[in-house]
Amino acid sequence: MARIAYVNGCYKNMRDASVNIEDRGFQFADGVYEVCEIRGGRIVDLPRHLGRLQHSLSELRIALPMALPALSVIMHEVVRRNRVNYGIVYLQITRGVARRDHGFPAASVPPSVVVSARSLNFAKNQNTAAHGIKVITYPENRWPRVDIKSVALLPNVLAKQAAREAGAYEAWYVDVDGFVTEGSSSNAWIITHDGVLVTRAATDAILSGITRAVLIDALATMQLTLEQRPFTPQEAIQAAEAFVTASSQIVMPVVMIDGKAIADGIPGRITRKLREEFHRFALFS
Amino acid sequence: MARIAYVNGCYKNMRDASVNIEDRGFQFADGVYEVCEIRGGRIVDLPRHLGRLQHSLSELRIALPMALPALSVIMHEVVRRNRVNYGIVYLQITRGVARRDHGFPAASVPPSVVVSARSLNFAKNQNTAAHGIKVITYPENRWPRVDIKSVALLPNVLAKQAAREAGAYEAWYVDVDGFVTEGSSSNAWIITHDGVLVTRAATDAILSGITRAVLIDALATMQLTLEQRPFTPQEAIQAAEAFVTASSQIVMPVVMIDGKAIADGIPGRITRKLREEFHRFALFS
Repeated sequence: MARIAYVNGCYKNMRDASVNIEDRGFQFADGVYEVCEIRGGRIVDLPRHLGRLQHSLSELRIALPMALPALSVIMHEVVRRNRVNYGIVYLQITRGVARRDHGFPAASVPPSVVVSARSLNFAKNQNTAAHGIKVITYPENRWPRVDIKSVALLPNVLAKQAAREAGAYEAWYVDVDGFVTEGSSSNAWIITHDGVLVTRAATDAILSGITRAVLIDALATMQLTLEQRPFTPQEAIQAAEAFVTASSQIVMPVVMIDGKAIADGIPGRITRKLREEFHRFALFS
Repeated sequence: MARIAYVNGCYKNMRDASVNIEDRGFQFADGVYEVCEIRGGRIVDLPRHLGRLQHSLSELRIALPMALPALSVIMHEVVRRNRVNYGIVYLQITRGVARRDHGFPAASVPPSVVVSARSLNFAKNQNTAAHGIKVITYPENRWPRVDIKSVALLPNVLAKQAAREAGAYEAWYVDVDGFVTEGSSSNAWIITHDGVLVTRAATDAILSGITRAVLIDALATMQLTLEQRPFTPQEAIQAAEAFVTASSQIVMPVVMIDGKAIADGIPGRITRKLREEFHRFALFS
């Protein structure tokens, strides 16, 4: 089945889904995006994603191209047309098409809107989670406004590729003070031997992950203790458990950091429980 | 006359010149670019631009999509088809189109190649140079690999826009040590009261500008002294002259920094001479 994408008002076959070469997303990385999980054909935690989208757009002073309910309708329609039961829906908004010039174009230039969706292999992802993933550490080298979910992802691309080439799945950025900030496309967590969950507080230094936020809310219900503070790779290696959160991976166990096994090198008990129970706390729409 | 662009093998009208929404330039800022001046219908310092292009591609491990002479032919053809006598030619190469995934796609995915060109208003640019431009200072907030001329330009967009809104033309980045790195789309220079030209050495902290490099070579011939070292905004304000270099602006006098006039607030004598004589040292092809 041909994949379908929404591009600036039209539903197109993926092969014909294109943006102008003067789209500011292409020439300047002047745009933002969101990725939501699709489960049972429904979009997970969409209102929170749209809330973060508004933050990103607002920080960059890109106009919201349409009301959020209209955007929601398009996202659902793209999911439906692609018949995705389990997978992701991708939304990208840029500052639009204008003659190349670094400064903002006239306010009359409409933002570009692109939505696509695709199925993921549920069994494969479950298998990955059953074994856990390896991560490497990587020097933090992104700009200080990673709270904006922009498409200026070149540093993330290089970090992820470095992980792949080291036989790992994710790279954890380590800041100049020696603390983990987050992964190249996920938030980083550890669980201490006292059963306390630790993740860095959401400041400009990390992206405020939606899965991270939902999980934080869930922890209270599950009577688990949370500390929002930085941790070092060394503390992570010596922790009881570790995992990452991301919309496409939910709670994904980490079993090795820089070649060193965490605990007995298999996914931790609390991590597995969080992964199993996450969707009880998620909002489906 | 409709503008023409080259996109992945075809010459297209600008309105039809497009790239797929899964082009990694659009989704990840995973690409590089070059801008060359066109003068008298010829491209200025093209071999140096292509040399820097190779550096950028090599650092990102993006394959050169065709031999440099072939790229040169396309750039000249785009200039010709757009009948540009004075203006710029823009070249962008990305890691190509692939299903969205941060890591590099298979090596078999061909890079995308886009070339466009447009006329600039010569009289208007000369008039700007006759009056000189204003700059503001702006905190350096880009990643540490700005020697790679990537399209991850969102920080530069925001800096340039801040300059515009302050009634200025360019923003000079100032690093954590208080020194000017470069402009958001230009290199920064000052001339001391002893007639010494000062510009920051080309390291990872600045883009190695082509106009900057040609000018450095020219200075020897013109028997002018050069110091490659950092300078502060304060030193710049107290300097005899200041200017920026960029392919689209050559040598552009700076007359004011953060609202403070440099010397008597008009373009300096040496700066004007450098602008007038620059093309004696440039290579036309």
